[in-house]
Amino acid sequence: MTSISQAACIGGGVIGGAWAARFLLAGIDVNMFDPHPEAERIVGEVLANAERAYAMLTMAPLPPKGKITFCKSVEEAVEGADWIQESVPERLELKLDVITQIDAAAHPKALIGSSTSGLMPTDLQRDMKHPERMFVAHPYNPVYLLPLAELVGGQKTSAETLKAAQEKLAPIGMKGVIIKKEIEAFVGDRLLEAVWREGLWLIHDDICDTETLDDVIRYSFGMRWAQMGMFETYRIAGGEAGMHHFLAQFGPCLSWPWTKLTDVVDLDDALVDKIAAQSDAQSGARGIRELERIRDENLVGIMQALKGGDAGRGWGAGKILAEFEKHLWAQGGVRSGAKQATPDHAAPLRLIDTQVSAAWVDYNGHMTEHRYLQVFGDTSDALLRLIGVDFAYVEAGQSYYTVETHIRHLGEARLGQRLYSTLQILASDEKRIRFFSTIFNAETDEALATAEQLMLHVDSKAGKSIPAPTEVLARLAAITEAHAELPLPEGVGRSVGQKR
Amino acid sequence: MTSISQAACIGGGVIGGAWAARFLLAGIDVNMFDPHPEAERIVGEVLANAERAYAMLTMAPLPPKGKITFCKSVEEAVEGADWIQESVPERLELKLDVITQIDAAAHPKALIGSSTSGLMPTDLQRDMKHPERMFVAHPYNPVYLLPLAELVGGQKTSAETLKAAQEKLAPIGMKGVIIKKEIEAFVGDRLLEAVWREGLWLIHDDICDTETLDDVIRYSFGMRWAQMGMFETYRIAGGEAGMHHFLAQFGPCLSWPWTKLTDVVDLDDALVDKIAAQSDAQSGARGIRELERIRDENLVGIMQALKGGDAGRGWGAGKILAEFEKHLWAQGGVRSGAKQATPDHAAPLRLIDTQVSAAWVDYNGHMTEHRYLQVFGDTSDALLRLIGVDFAYVEAGQSYYTVETHIRHLGEARLGQRLYSTLQILASDEKRIRFFSTIFNAETDEALATAEQLMLHVDSKAGKSIPAPTEVLARLAAITEAHAELPLPEGVGRSVGQKR
Repeated sequence: MTSISQAACIGGGVIGGAWAARFLLAGIDVNMFDPHPEAERIVGEVLANAERAYAMLTMAPLPPKGKITFCKSVEEAVEGADWIQESVPERLELKLDVITQIDAAAHPKALIGSSTSGLMPTDLQRDMKHPERMFVAHPYNPVYLLPLAELVGGQKTSAETLKAAQEKLAPIGMKGVIIKKEIEAFVGDRLLEAVWREGLWLIHDDICDTETLDDVIRYSFGMRWAQMGMFETYRIAGGEAGMHHFLAQFGPCLSWPWTKLTDVVDLDDALVDKIAAQSDAQSGARGIRELERIRDENLVGIMQALKGGDAGRGWGAGKILAEFEKHLWAQGGVRSGAKQATPDHAAPLRLIDTQVSAAWVDYNGHMTEHRYLQVFGDTSDALLRLIGVDFAYVEAGQSYYTVETHIRHLGEARLGQRLYSTLQILASDEKRIRFFSTIFNAETDEALATAEQLMLHVDSKAGKSIPAPTEVLARLAAITEAHAELPLPEGVGRSVGQKR
Repeated sequence: MTSISQAACIGGGVIGGAWAARFLLAGIDVNMFDPHPEAERIVGEVLANAERAYAMLTMAPLPPKGKITFCKSVEEAVEGADWIQESVPERLELKLDVITQIDAAAHPKALIGSSTSGLMPTDLQRDMKHPERMFVAHPYNPVYLLPLAELVGGQKTSAETLKAAQEKLAPIGMKGVIIKKEIEAFVGDRLLEAVWREGLWLIHDDICDTETLDDVIRYSFGMRWAQMGMFETYRIAGGEAGMHHFLAQFGPCLSWPWTKLTDVVDLDDALVDKIAAQSDAQSGARGIRELERIRDENLVGIMQALKGGDAGRGWGAGKILAEFEKHLWAQGGVRSGAKQATPDHAAPLRLIDTQVSAAWVDYNGHMTEHRYLQVFGDTSDALLRLIGVDFAYVEAGQSYYTVETHIRHLGEARLGQRLYSTLQILASDEKRIRFFSTIFNAETDEALATAEQLMLHVDSKAGKSIPAPTEVLARLAAITEAHAELPLPEGVGRSVGQKR
C-alpha cells in the first residue's frame, strides 16, 4: 500500500483532531495548526479516546506512534507534508483563505483534502495555483473508528489525485469512496438530511418522541444498514425475482402520503425546546463522555463481529478492518507498546498489549473465561510471526495448530483493564513447540492467567503434521536456546487439580 | 413475563412465516392459515433459516419447539389463539375481509395484530365487533432476528391492548415500541421512505451508483444507527453544550439546497433498469440465499457484540437479546435439542447444542481456538444451572469460578457445523467441582475437543472461596455419585505434552 509519509492537519477540533489520531496511530508524524488556545488539549482528548478504542479494536501490531507537532502557522505546518487535511469551520470564506495559504506553502504534489460536510470542491479550489491536487475527503464522526471518507473532486481535480488519495487512506484503516459528481453535501449527508427532516416532523407532530424514534432505528434497519446499506438489503427483500420485482412493488408508495418531505419543518424555539427536553429524558442520565465511550465500545464490537462475516473473510467495515490488520501485520514486528522492538532472548518475549473491551466482559463486568484464551491465541500468533509464520505462509498451506492448552486463572480483569502478555518457549523440535504464556495486569504487573500450550506444525490441506522448513526452525531454535537459560515458570507441567 | 399460549398466523409469506418462526422457537404452538399452495414449503424455509440463526445467536436453552398446524380456514386457525397475527398482502379490501373473519371467529379477548407496513389501524378495525383488541404490530425483515415491532393503535384500540401486546412480545425476544399517534407508514417506514427517495435521486442523477451509496451508509452512519439511532448520536455530536447547541448548528442547513426531497423522482423504466443493472454489478455474484445467510450471520454477530455493550449489561438490540436469554434461562432446563430433558445420571450430561457462527471462524473458515473454550464455558454454566446456580444466585453474591482448564484439540469445526457438548463430573466436594467436557460434531458424533476443568465456589464480593450451600451440594452430589459409575474418560489428568 502507498503510505503517507508526513501529514499536516489544519484545524484541530473534533474532526481535525480525529484525523490527527488516525495518522498518528498509523505511525505517521503530524504537524497541526489551529489558532484555538485549547487546541492542544482538545486534540489530546480525542487522541486518548482513539488510543483506547484501538487497543480494544485490534491486536495487530500498531507501529510506533507518530509524533505530533503544534505549529505556529499554516506555512510551518504544511512543510514537508504529502497529505494536508483541512478541517476548519464550515464557512466558505474562511476555508478559501486557509486553502490559499496551504496552496502557496505546500509542495506542489502534496494532496490537499478538505473535511467539509457540504461545500463544493470546485468552489474551494477556485483560487488555487495547483487545484488539481485538491479534493474533498469527508469523514464521519468518530473519524478514528468509522472507516468512510467520501472523496469528491471539483472541476479542476485530476483523476490521479482521487486515485492516489484512495490508495493512501487504506494504510490508515480508512476506505476512500469516490463520488462520481460533485453536489452539495455529497451522498452521506444528503441521506442523513432526508431522515433528519422527516424525523423533525415526527417529533413536531407528536407521532413519537426522540427515544421511540431512536429505538425504531436501532432495533430494525440500523442493524441492516450497518452491514449492507440500503440497496443490497432491498435486493434480498426482492427475493429470487430480483431488483426489478422489488422496485415494482416498492415504487408506487413513492406517491403515497408517507412522508412530509415536500414541506420543510420550521425549527423554531418551541421545537428545539421539545427535542432537547425529550433528548434529556432519553439520555440525560449519562454524560456525553460516557455516551461517547459506550458508542466507541459498541462500534468496536460491531466491527469485530463484521470481521468474522462472510465465513471469516470479513464483511463491510469488518473487511476494511481485516485489511488494515493484514497491513499492520505485514509491517510486522511486535506491538508498539511492547518493551522490545526486537525480541530480547534472555527474557520471556513480551508480545501483546491490549485492553478489555465491552464485548469481552460478562454482566458482572469481568473478563470472560474464553477471552483469556483469545489473548493467549494472539500471543502465540505473535510468536509465529516472529519466526516467519505469517499470512503468506499460512495461505501457502502450512501452519502451526494448537493441540493442547492448560490454563490457570490467578486473578481477574475488568472492563477497560490494560493487559500485556509474555511468552517463554519450554521446548521445540522440528514439528513441535511447547511454550508458557502469561497475561499480566499492565498497571500492577500482577499475573492474571497462565497458559502452557503445545503447537504442531501441519500441512493444512493434507491435515497431517510435517516438519517445519529450516528457516523457520532456525529462528525458533535461536529463541528456544536463549529461553533454555530461563528458570522453568511456576506451574509448568501441571495437570488439572494437581497438588502443588 | 406474560406469555402467549397459542398463536395464529393468517398469511404465511416471508413476514407471516417469520412471525410463525418467532412463536415456534419460543415454544408457542402456531396455527397457520394461508391459501397459497406452497405456503407450507415457504414457511418451512423461513423456519429453517430462523433455526440456523438462533443456533448461532444464543446458547440459552430454547424451550421445546412449538407445533405448527396448517389449517383450512381462518376460523379453524384462530380457534383457541390468544395472539392472532395478520400478514396478508397489503391491500385494504383484502385485509378488511380477513380481519372481519378473524373478528367473528376469535375469542373476544384475543389480541389481533396486523403486519401492515402503512395502513392505518383505524381503517383496519372499521368493521370489527371487538375493535378494542386490534392494533398494528409492524415488524422488520428478518422478523426472526430483528427485535422491533411498531405497535400502533387505531381510534378504537384500548390502551390495555397495546400494553398487553408489549408484554407478550418480550418472551419471544421482541421489543414492542408504542407509537403515540397513528399515521400512514408509522415511524420506521417514513424514515426509510425519506432515504429511499433521496437515494433514487442520487442514482438518477449519476452522483453515485448503488454500491457506492451502500458503502457510504455501511462504513459510516449505518454503524452509528445500529446502536444508538439518530437523536442520541447527534446528542453526542453536540458535545457538553448539549442538544440545544447541536440544533442551533445543524438547523440552518435544513434550508440549504442539500436534498431534492421537494421533488418526487419518476421511477420510470429507465431508472428501474439502471438500478437493477447497478445492483447486479454490486451483488450479482452472490445468490439471494447466500446474501440472506450472510445478512443473518452479520446480524447475529452485531447483536452478540451489542450484548456486551454498556459494560456487559447489554445495549440496544443486545440488551433485548440479553433479556430474552435471561427469560430462557429462567424457564430453565437443558437446551431443546438435548437428548434428555431431565439429566440421565448414568451417562455424561448432554448440555449444549449450538452451531459455528461467522464470528467464530478465522479467515480459513475454521472455528477459532478460544471459541472452543466459549462452548466449554457455556457447558459448565449449564451444569451450574442444573444444580441451582442461576442468575439470581450469582446476583446474590456467590458463584463458581473456573480456576484451571486443560483443553485437547482432536478435530476441526467449520462455519455452520452443528455441535453438542457433554459433561461428566470427576469429583466434587463442598468447594470444588472437577469435570470433563467434550465437544462433538453433531453429524458424526466425532469428539472435536475435550476440556478438564476445576471450578471453585466463591463469595464474589469477598473474593474468597467458601463452601456451597447444602441444597446446591445435594444436587451436585447426586450427579457426582451417578457419574462415579462411569469409566474415566481418556485423557483425564494429562499435563501438556505428556506421553500417552
